[in-house]
Amino acid sequence: MTTAKRDTYTPETLLSVAVRVFNERGYDGTSMEHLSKAAGISKSSIYHHVAGKEELLRRAVSRALDGLFGILDEPGASRGRAVEQVEYVTRRTVEVLMAELPYVTLLLRVRGNTKAERWALERRREFDQRVADLMKAAAADGDLRADVDIRMATRLLFGMINSLVEWYRPQAAGGGGTDGEQLAETVVRLAFDGLRTSR
Amino acid sequence: MTTAKRDTYTPETLLSVAVRVFNERGYDGTSMEHLSKAAGISKSSIYHHVAGKEELLRRAVSRALDGLFGILDEPGASRGRAVEQVEYVTRRTVEVLMAELPYVTLLLRVRGNTKAERWALERRREFDQRVADLMKAAAADGDLRADVDIRMATRLLFGMINSLVEWYRPQAAGGGGTDGEQLAETVVRLAFDGLRTSR
Repeated sequence: MTTAKRDTYTPETLLSVAVRVFNERGYDGTSMEHLSKAAGISKSSIYHHVAGKEELLRRAVSRALDGLFGILDEPGASRGRAVEQVEYVTRRTVEVLMAELPYVTLLLRVRGNTKAERWALERRREFDQRVADLMKAAAADGDLRADVDIRMATRLLFGMINSLVEWYRPQAAGGGGTDGEQLAETVVRLAFDGLRTSR
Repeated sequence: MTTAKRDTYTPETLLSVAVRVFNERGYDGTSMEHLSKAAGISKSSIYHHVAGKEELLRRAVSRALDGLFGILDEPGASRGRAVEQVEYVTRRTVEVLMAELPYVTLLLRVRGNTKAERWALERRREFDQRVADLMKAAAADGDLRADVDIRMATRLLFGMINSLVEWYRPQAAGGGGTDGEQLAETVVRLAFDGLRTSR
């Protein structure tokens, strides 16, 4: 039975179990014992797949980071005016966050106590910085309001986007949950056009 | 010495130490032993002031909630068009969050495992609902965009505001930190007018 169970486990399925446990208990609060229980396989079976929990963290946040950095290589992120690029990246960031929800949730909760965590934080800052640079370029083009501090606005924009991990739940087939497409559009409209019709 | 130390402690100073420890360790992860060590007074001295850690939590989140609900009683929250009331409440919410940063941080991190936590969550939802009602009234007046789901927009607005507890640091006397007044104004401008100058 143990052998059969081990055989059904792939690095992929182990990763998704690990991410769920990390998000529930916190990375610091998760032991190999917790992972073993949640996966229903022995610790030695886990070590058959990965070197330890740090490798699982690195793989999990890599998946989130690959999704985010991938956006910057898409044509929409470099085509047209800077403000259009920023809107594109904003919409796609919301989409990646929804598609990779547990992985991005983990990335956003990383604290920096271990080497893998510090690496994740640094890569995340790098992504934020790339978006901040686009925002600055859009401001330099005169396409963003001059009466708003761009660094502050960038932080607020990320604050709004990242808050999704706290409350967004995918729409179930039978209704309920949130319409993802509408959500991405609402973030872009709110941030760039504002909620008011007129003043 | 113990007597002298106990005498310098007031419920106020004990509360501020408790809030700091709750925010650092999480409410669940904080024992009376931790509080005793952080305050530098014995557990029995703490029990001289409060019945236990649940009372400290209740007092701490009450301070945040009193600040937030107080906004709704201010003239600006009921004067003029609904959209102006919403903008007023948004600006003041940011200001209260900055003024009572550790208390609001604790309120936003409450999980609902104990009676005091569930009470705090319920009161917080009540505040959110009051603001959501104002948003709906503003939409009914035709002052908010019709192509945006108001419930979603309200969640995003709170997501943006609440993200401040993660990165806002008060401006020090010698510079550094964030300009609070400008921050409140930036949140209102971003959410209601948007970042774009034109399209």
